[in-house]
Amino acid sequence: MLGRIDHIGVAVEDLDASLALYAETLGMPVVHRETVTEQGVEAILLDVGEGHVELLAPLGPETPVGRYLARKGPGIHHVAYQVPDIDATLAALKAAGTRLIDETPRIGIRGSRVAFVHPAATGGVLTEIVQPAEGH
Amino acid sequence: MLGRIDHIGVAVEDLDASLALYAETLGMPVVHRETVTEQGVEAILLDVGEGHVELLAPLGPETPVGRYLARKGPGIHHVAYQVPDIDATLAALKAAGTRLIDETPRIGIRGSRVAFVHPAATGGVLTEIVQPAEGH
Repeated sequence: MLGRIDHIGVAVEDLDASLALYAETLGMPVVHRETVTEQGVEAILLDVGEGHVELLAPLGPETPVGRYLARKGPGIHHVAYQVPDIDATLAALKAAGTRLIDETPRIGIRGSRVAFVHPAATGGVLTEIVQPAEGH
Repeated sequence: MLGRIDHIGVAVEDLDASLALYAETLGMPVVHRETVTEQGVEAILLDVGEGHVELLAPLGPETPVGRYLARKGPGIHHVAYQVPDIDATLAALKAAGTRLIDETPRIGIRGSRVAFVHPAATGGVLTEIVQPAEGH
């Protein structure tokens, strides 16, 4: 049902300091930077293999990533799996009784269509499914 | 320097309950189960795309994963990137002054060679590099 790991999302306090670590120390090329207001984050995508690391800095303390940082500190915030048809995957998850955060897809970074599965359904792991936009 | 995301490691309290979620609800095939005494875990590998989810249950409370669960609760414990030559990657990281947990590789699941980078060098993310054994 799920395809490859598309990215991991990393909650960070200082986007530019984290960028230096990932781009310079770990050698990951930066491919995109975007403020995703709907999700309350400024995000940077870096390439690693066919996947990505997504650095996420909160736009304020009362955003999901802001609350995550206050509760758990910096670290891996979510994992995202690629799917070819997000509507079909959501329908299959719903049919299986899986608890979802998003019943319908919303727009994610770089025009992707995304939805989050509730961590209660995945052993405490915030899990995203993502259908990349054409060309990504 | 780093290749694709090889796996995410998920710290779980109940291995069989988590296995049911990942194998049945999310449809990931189980490919391997192993007790890695050196790391203090019982582990299950599931396939997703060309990568894996590694479910990790601690062998006791005084193990790294046991302490992680007590401190943070169940969730993503680490991310692992594939490399073709782990000795070369470790040498490059050391030359760049990157703080490492393992200065030399040790044996991981399925006969892989692995090493951990210190979370201080990666924005709080416990990061593993892994050179898979031949055939994996």
